[in-house]
Amino acid sequence: MSCPTMTSQTEKVLMAHGSGGTLSSQLLDTVFLPAFSLSSESLHDGAIFTLGDQQFAFTTDTYVVNPLFFPGGNIGDLAVNGTVNDLAMCGAVPQFLSCGFVLEEGFDLSSLQRIVSSMQAAAQKCGVELVTGDTKVVERGKGDGVFINTSGIGLIRGPALSPKKIQTGDVVIVSGDIGRHGTAILSEREGFTFESTIESDTMELSSMMQQLLKSQVDIHCARDITRGGLATILVELAQSAGLGMAIDESRVPVNGFVRGACEFLGLDPLYVACEGRFVLFVPASEAKKALQIIGPAACIIGEVLSDSPFVTAKTSIGSQRIIDKLSGDQLPRIC
Amino acid sequence: MSCPTMTSQTEKVLMAHGSGGTLSSQLLDTVFLPAFSLSSESLHDGAIFTLGDQQFAFTTDTYVVNPLFFPGGNIGDLAVNGTVNDLAMCGAVPQFLSCGFVLEEGFDLSSLQRIVSSMQAAAQKCGVELVTGDTKVVERGKGDGVFINTSGIGLIRGPALSPKKIQTGDVVIVSGDIGRHGTAILSEREGFTFESTIESDTMELSSMMQQLLKSQVDIHCARDITRGGLATILVELAQSAGLGMAIDESRVPVNGFVRGACEFLGLDPLYVACEGRFVLFVPASEAKKALQIIGPAACIIGEVLSDSPFVTAKTSIGSQRIIDKLSGDQLPRIC
Repeated sequence: MSCPTMTSQTEKVLMAHGSGGTLSSQLLDTVFLPAFSLSSESLHDGAIFTLGDQQFAFTTDTYVVNPLFFPGGNIGDLAVNGTVNDLAMCGAVPQFLSCGFVLEEGFDLSSLQRIVSSMQAAAQKCGVELVTGDTKVVERGKGDGVFINTSGIGLIRGPALSPKKIQTGDVVIVSGDIGRHGTAILSEREGFTFESTIESDTMELSSMMQQLLKSQVDIHCARDITRGGLATILVELAQSAGLGMAIDESRVPVNGFVRGACEFLGLDPLYVACEGRFVLFVPASEAKKALQIIGPAACIIGEVLSDSPFVTAKTSIGSQRIIDKLSGDQLPRIC
Repeated sequence: MSCPTMTSQTEKVLMAHGSGGTLSSQLLDTVFLPAFSLSSESLHDGAIFTLGDQQFAFTTDTYVVNPLFFPGGNIGDLAVNGTVNDLAMCGAVPQFLSCGFVLEEGFDLSSLQRIVSSMQAAAQKCGVELVTGDTKVVERGKGDGVFINTSGIGLIRGPALSPKKIQTGDVVIVSGDIGRHGTAILSEREGFTFESTIESDTMELSSMMQQLLKSQVDIHCARDITRGGLATILVELAQSAGLGMAIDESRVPVNGFVRGACEFLGLDPLYVACEGRFVLFVPASEAKKALQIIGPAACIIGEVLSDSPFVTAKTSIGSQRIIDKLSGDQLPRIC
């Protein structure tokens, strides 16, 4: 593997640097990881650390979704659910959130109030407390309504989950149908109307994760499917685990309206973001128990192989294709 | 006291909502506090909570300073020092930071690299680890180069500090001369050149706070002087403590060049932000010890009275004036 090169003076930030795909990884590898002395090996949805005799998870996300209000939610509940979900995927019980607002001069205070109310409702549903915050204002044209950062702290009572725990023979479970969030955002943004309004799947996944952990399902790894979609996340996890994965595309659940909209918009559902779905890696013997707890929308879509760390998909016509991370940015500002 | 009114549909975000002054307080009281079920009584630089048998501080700040690079620092070290200082003011030893970047399309990657290097150096100096992060990109004209959120977790080993602990008879100590950061930013932004380049005072205050705590100085409260300046912070603390304060303006240290620049720019140094200074409240009997530890730049500027919660200042000509919070926004995007 070649050494990541430092950026040259002429290089500029592109929209795709925020896509969660190839360019995001490159930015991480060349700019952030060397400086912050982190190892990309340990990358997960949050940092896990021990203070005293207690393990914690700590995570952060800034939300710049456009539009701020969309079918099924708004930037407020998205910002709470998203960070809660990152903590849950570490195997943590979310406890406390911070929120940092960047407001654009001229933004409606009544819209801000709606957003803040949604945050409150979402936090209550997740059982987390919004305990500290900050507000900054930038001039008109230097922001876009509102950006929200939420950072969160969770308590890890059982084993911490990590891509390193993925093993050959694990089954890959997806918790429900994919692609609703991205499709809802894009339809709303572009003013497309389809037969039915597609709503974002934004929801908290912590309750479900806690149920799985309480029922002592032997979870090896869990990851919520956000930027870059299912495909990008599987490739990342395969690389972190150093193992191959094979999925069967015909088994990946996609709602009919979402599939139709993706066809119309030229999107591959495997790369479209969700905000309320996750993939789970468990030994085959645990799959039945896991599926029962998650519910009827969950299904097994593939398995982990002892191969080199590539993800292959059996297509609907029976051929095999190698899945790569999202390249470019098909859906900017999705979250 | 009248009940805070909800905002009407026509109200818009103004620059002064981000000033740290009167309108910031109003936004907090009418929008954020009711939703987040926090009490403004408990407001401090961060939230303090207990998990297991351990007390923690948790804080967040988004940095939108303009320009990104200024004499004495840049947005990167500012973002690390600022959040570290907020933790230190809670009486916590800063441990972990998260960082969330919002990049504007077209921003120079080499500038980003300089900023990230400064963050690394500042974190190292403070003894904190940057453990988790997030990057988003917005279209050109929807951001302003880079905004950085840092959130932090600190461990409280001794007593937590709070405005509630301020007592009648406490002396008010300021750790050094005020107003350098705000003056440096404004001079740089407007292209003013004075006799001497005024550098920002951005620095970490955690080492000094830890030394004070280790030496068992009986600190009642500490607060770093940022947005709104010394005046606004004293008014906030007086209100939280429910006690009066009297300061002597002639004892407030202001560097000669800063004073000259403030006169030229029409600013009152009492309202100009610092990023490396704090006020400390200790019993009079502890003042000498505290001053010795902080060093020769520190001095006593006033005392806490049993009066109603107003701050009065003895002016240089010997008259008294009542100090209020910053009204409007004399220095937008200072941090």
